[in-house]
Amino acid sequence: MKFQAPKGTRDFYPEDMAIRNWIEERWRAVSLRNGFVEYDGPVFEYLDLYRVKSGEEIVSQLFHFEDRGGRELAIRPEMTPTLARMVAARAHALPKPIKWFSVPRMCRAERPQRGRLREFFQWNIDVLGEDGEIADAEAIFVLVDFLREVGLSPETAEVKINSRAIVAAILRQAAIPAGRLDAVYAVLDKRDKLSPEAFNESIREIGLDDAQREMLLRMGEAKGRDGLSDIESILRGDEEGLASCRSLRTVLDLLATMGVADYCRYDMGVVRGLAYYTGTVFEAFGKGGLRRAICGGGRYDRLLSDLGGPPMGGVGFATSDVVIQDLLAELNLLPATKEHIDFFVIDADAQLFPIAIDVTAKLRARNVSAVFSYARQGVGKQFRQAAGRKARRVVIIEPGEHAGRTVAVKDMESGVQANVAIEKLLDDPWQPLQPP
Amino acid sequence: MKFQAPKGTRDFYPEDMAIRNWIEERWRAVSLRNGFVEYDGPVFEYLDLYRVKSGEEIVSQLFHFEDRGGRELAIRPEMTPTLARMVAARAHALPKPIKWFSVPRMCRAERPQRGRLREFFQWNIDVLGEDGEIADAEAIFVLVDFLREVGLSPETAEVKINSRAIVAAILRQAAIPAGRLDAVYAVLDKRDKLSPEAFNESIREIGLDDAQREMLLRMGEAKGRDGLSDIESILRGDEEGLASCRSLRTVLDLLATMGVADYCRYDMGVVRGLAYYTGTVFEAFGKGGLRRAICGGGRYDRLLSDLGGPPMGGVGFATSDVVIQDLLAELNLLPATKEHIDFFVIDADAQLFPIAIDVTAKLRARNVSAVFSYARQGVGKQFRQAAGRKARRVVIIEPGEHAGRTVAVKDMESGVQANVAIEKLLDDPWQPLQPP
Repeated sequence: MKFQAPKGTRDFYPEDMAIRNWIEERWRAVSLRNGFVEYDGPVFEYLDLYRVKSGEEIVSQLFHFEDRGGRELAIRPEMTPTLARMVAARAHALPKPIKWFSVPRMCRAERPQRGRLREFFQWNIDVLGEDGEIADAEAIFVLVDFLREVGLSPETAEVKINSRAIVAAILRQAAIPAGRLDAVYAVLDKRDKLSPEAFNESIREIGLDDAQREMLLRMGEAKGRDGLSDIESILRGDEEGLASCRSLRTVLDLLATMGVADYCRYDMGVVRGLAYYTGTVFEAFGKGGLRRAICGGGRYDRLLSDLGGPPMGGVGFATSDVVIQDLLAELNLLPATKEHIDFFVIDADAQLFPIAIDVTAKLRARNVSAVFSYARQGVGKQFRQAAGRKARRVVIIEPGEHAGRTVAVKDMESGVQANVAIEKLLDDPWQPLQPP
Repeated sequence: MKFQAPKGTRDFYPEDMAIRNWIEERWRAVSLRNGFVEYDGPVFEYLDLYRVKSGEEIVSQLFHFEDRGGRELAIRPEMTPTLARMVAARAHALPKPIKWFSVPRMCRAERPQRGRLREFFQWNIDVLGEDGEIADAEAIFVLVDFLREVGLSPETAEVKINSRAIVAAILRQAAIPAGRLDAVYAVLDKRDKLSPEAFNESIREIGLDDAQREMLLRMGEAKGRDGLSDIESILRGDEEGLASCRSLRTVLDLLATMGVADYCRYDMGVVRGLAYYTGTVFEAFGKGGLRRAICGGGRYDRLLSDLGGPPMGGVGFATSDVVIQDLLAELNLLPATKEHIDFFVIDADAQLFPIAIDVTAKLRARNVSAVFSYARQGVGKQFRQAAGRKARRVVIIEPGEHAGRTVAVKDMESGVQANVAIEKLLDDPWQPLQPP
């Protein structure tokens, strides 16, 4: 009768939890310093919310169930439907721009594989209610700010940026019907994961001919400012398409002004698979062995109205703790996670134990972490316990006339030990220690 | 096609999220300063984990579903089974005592009512691998430390403490068969929620007579040190029962040494409903209109072995954000939640906007929060935006020969404004401002 964590999920023992907390703290710190405020929704939603956004085929990818009243519910697989629902409900009352972030727990009923688990944590950044390129640039800046925060340099990570509007203009020029665009986006998004044969087969399935396929492949090679110029040459005469190119140039210029041009690059190969993107799309890639995007996002201008809300656009991205942790582990950028304790209080004699717990309780009231040994045992053993907890300082309650008034305090890093009046220790637990 | 949050769940808009984060931060800070380390498990577990612990009747209270392989899963309704499973898997490798905390998201398929929702957040504190009273006292101390942390005094909150072993001794003396103890605990736990008639009916249903019922009612009145003495008189000659009383006195003495006696009181009326408690049991009550426990816990000595693990005992408690928030709101102890932003950067002229975003980006790199207006508009309107975000300081990029080298910085609280070189601002964003 041994139980294990369900397939595709993780147990977070303290050393694992410290890593997860470290990643989440970086997400929160970056969000807050960029002026985003945190929100969250329920871990499950009505199943129809996902059906409306993604169609019936999404259902098999969700953990879904019924409540007692027979209402169909599903554990959230992504945050955007919840975000759209919440913003739509207060669209007129919320001051614009709406700059929100969230660090939700998510589940997907998919087959577990490297970088994809059945349960994971996401970081979601969204700017809503601002149509200008400044919102797109700010969202991408926040992403780069996080890459920098965790030690990823332009040598180890990059953000590839494109525009659905430009892709649509090219596809128009290749005479691909508007009704097939979503299918083309989905195939292009999977291109790197497909063999050339499977890619060709997918292209035929959505009804494109060989010339159109070649054009798609060639188009995907355009990269950098020069690549964007090439695309503009192809689009000569298509004013709408050229306007989309100018808009993307504005985004890239703003990112340069923000000082993050070295992380950012135009890349016509990035289209994103989700149907709801309408403008800028982008993905972050780590230059490690894990050959997939570690983060994706883009502009969505019809999502709120599709879910019954007002016609308000937005731009945002999401990333998961699983891919971030995999990449940082590979690049040796994860921190050491053994947590320090501030004070370990030792009694040199079992009779002094009440003084030890009294001093411990008072140290805690000073908001420093403090523990004592549960077992009454020798000072040496208690010191070993203190070292095991990585205590910064050890307090020793010694017998004699001063017991209860003065204690010995030892700094575990410097080795310096000094006698300190308990009152003074509590006044300033981190006071410098003078060797006697 | 308007969607809402599912029944019994909550949307956390930023002002709600700030409250939830404030409560969770208090939980984390108290846990850490008492030397506990954080863990977590998956949000769903195999349904059998709950069946084994609580029987088939638990299933109707859970949100449960199947994965593609037909495995039965359930969203966790409590943390203890996950904790027991995780500790059992590494029981021999983990250093003792195991002092762990968690702040998990939980769901229960119950009828929503005040203080009880279908989704909530819990704080779990557990000490495992230590049989002595010191572990029971430490767990209760942590609970009181939290009550103090959020401003609850002995006048507004108290912890009622009892021992299942003492209750069992009394029930033995009243000739209540050992096989009925769990049923008696469940009825006693619900006593305050039942009418006298319903209570009597429940007592008859589990096969007790009128004399036994009277004894149970009288027993429940014993409170405080004197109450414990009365119980000891009743138990005279029952050495096992008297030993349990002495053990509970030791717990109360330790709490007094720790300086929290004023929050703690022996109360024979507290028995807790869960079958797995074996020793000390306790509940915290807020003295507000919400007449129910805000926290409950106790010692469990057979839980790990029941779940297939080694015979390791533990003591712990759990509380939820819902009851804590309700009580603190009633006592007006919740904080103001509108978050400040550190810097709002204003351009006095649209042409200076690139400088504004450059300065903003560089302030963020100094790890202070900084934002700018997305709209190019007058200084007055930008100042109003800054006030709306509760900016602590405003930076104004002014035209002229110094643009890009010197900015005006205004402290929004004091009203002091001074010119500062951008380089110096970035060196020390919080430097004192000298009026010109």
